Amino acid sequence: MRAIVYEGAGGLEVIALREVATPEPGPAQVRVKVCATAVNRADLLQRMGAYPAPPGAVKDVPGLEFSGVVDAVGPGADPQWLGREVCGISGGGAYAEYVCVHQGVLMARPSGIALDELAAVPEAFITAHDALVTIGAMVEGATVLVHAVGSGVGVAAAQIAVAAGARVFGTARSADKRARAKELGLEAVFDGEAWSEGVRDALGARGVDVIVDFVGAHYLARNVAALAPRGRLVVVGLLGGTHGELDLGLLLRKRARVEGTVLRSRSDDEKAEATAAFARWAEPRWASGALRPVIDRGFSLEQAAEAQAVMASNENFGKILLRVQ
Amino acid sequence: MRAIVYEGAGGLEVIALREVATPEPGPAQVRVKVCATAVNRADLLQRMGAYPAPPGAVKDVPGLEFSGVVDAVGPGADPQWLGREVCGISGGGAYAEYVCVHQGVLMARPSGIALDELAAVPEAFITAHDALVTIGAMVEGATVLVHAVGSGVGVAAAQIAVAAGARVFGTARSADKRARAKELGLEAVFDGEAWSEGVRDALGARGVDVIVDFVGAHYLARNVAALAPRGRLVVVGLLGGTHGELDLGLLLRKRARVEGTVLRSRSDDEKAEATAAFARWAEPRWASGALRPVIDRGFSLEQAAEAQAVMASNENFGKILLRVQ
Repeated sequence: MRAIVYEGAGGLEVIALREVATPEPGPAQVRVKVCATAVNRADLLQRMGAYPAPPGAVKDVPGLEFSGVVDAVGPGADPQWLGREVCGISGGGAYAEYVCVHQGVLMARPSGIALDELAAVPEAFITAHDALVTIGAMVEGATVLVHAVGSGVGVAAAQIAVAAGARVFGTARSADKRARAKELGLEAVFDGEAWSEGVRDALGARGVDVIVDFVGAHYLARNVAALAPRGRLVVVGLLGGTHGELDLGLLLRKRARVEGTVLRSRSDDEKAEATAAFARWAEPRWASGALRPVIDRGFSLEQAAEAQAVMASNENFGKILLRVQ
Repeated sequence: MRAIVYEGAGGLEVIALREVATPEPGPAQVRVKVCATAVNRADLLQRMGAYPAPPGAVKDVPGLEFSGVVDAVGPGADPQWLGREVCGISGGGAYAEYVCVHQGVLMARPSGIALDELAAVPEAFITAHDALVTIGAMVEGATVLVHAVGSGVGVAAAQIAVAAGARVFGTARSADKRARAKELGLEAVFDGEAWSEGVRDALGARGVDVIVDFVGAHYLARNVAALAPRGRLVVVGLLGGTHGELDLGLLLRKRARVEGTVLRSRSDDEKAEATAAFARWAEPRWASGALRPVIDRGFSLEQAAEAQAVMASNENFGKILLRVQ
């Protein structure tokens, strides 16, 4: 099969399209004929050698999510999956014509979502749902702040929070992204540097119940300052550095929480659990149109380097697709 | 009635025994004829002007917990409480012959615990149970690290964790406290400065599932480093400073959590909930002897300054009682 392979660690030049062996599904696995995959920040980190594939995942072929059709099942996997249109997350290997994953991570295509566009769903929406609902315990009427709201996960988090009946705020660095994010139903979208005052003006002493953050250290002090009593800061990315100062006095007085999370290193069972939790929650909301994949642009598998360059430039609003078939 | 009053903010010299008006129970409140109260670190902070009473609490009379007999009920409070032996937490006012509290915070005296010794229970055990079980989600077989394990809350946390079937470790600064803590059933008790290696040697890559910490900034980096995957650091005190460096990279990779908590500022309903959760959990464990108040020494109400001096010196192992009647 054709697949994108990282030939060593480095810049876009290590990205190569190669013929590799088509994988065979192992116990409880299915093989998916990939329709499309999507670019994640982690793909770029992995390419640079900063984020190796977790144990058990495909090492040299990147790709953390896919949509496609199940074309083979391994020993012990449910043959009813055969022929079904699905999407899901994988520890790697999805920049390819075929990928093998544990059957538990599969999510059936919701009607109304095209199969190629479905590749924009798994990482962004499962991460966002897990961060907001499972970890962040967001409830209707909660106040939510989504940083980098124009990112793939950011757009998904904004949609999920709006659909859950929260009061949703965001941050983004460009005026264009702020305007587009606002259309998702956000109450206000602030500048990516100067957002603290805007949040304070909007929410006053109440503060923010749940913050989804991709920035890390650079925002840490301001995030904790912006939290409401019993607020939850859920950190899913570290684009602004890893080591920040934490005011524990504030954390105690607010009885607040800082939690880090990552999807990729989880066990198959944990991934299956997070997928099922999102799929259940999302089912009626796909039908109503409250959730939809937001795709910045699409490339072919051959254009993987170009696609990663777009993500590196932070130009994208929503997901960057790689169409395989 | 007689009560200890803080006459301004300062050292032990501001502690005075005075005649003050006996309080009357308000709506849904009961009045308790206090048998004993106990000294908390917060009493010392309040005396120094660093921890004012929360809104609605008695301002000048310190005292966050009590045991005694209900002698009056306010409008809407259940008259069945009259005459019952109880203990509970209060926002202040317990260094006195009478204290009024919301009926929801009352806990009936477990048989086998003397009424005066019961004053050593509420703050320490409810705080520890809330931190370990409600916030920390400790389960049987979990690994637990209790810092300052000789403190009132530390001793309670150690007992609760051992009773829950956890593998329990502690830290304490004096050899004497380490030896006494070990007798509570801990697997090992480490030096209060050099504990990281001991924990690593004992638990290796597994790390600690739940840490109860009173030290704050001074331990923050080491606490996060000691956490297990999905571990929870619950910070209930800040004796070692408020601002510490947090390695968010580690927090993400471990999918770990840092949470601050405090009991005193909670609403009556939240206090009632935490009290009821502990009381339910504790009931069979009082009877079996798994839990028991650990009292370092007792003083009379007149000796409040002396009692606070003992706490300031960190000499105590367990609680310091003030007997009122």
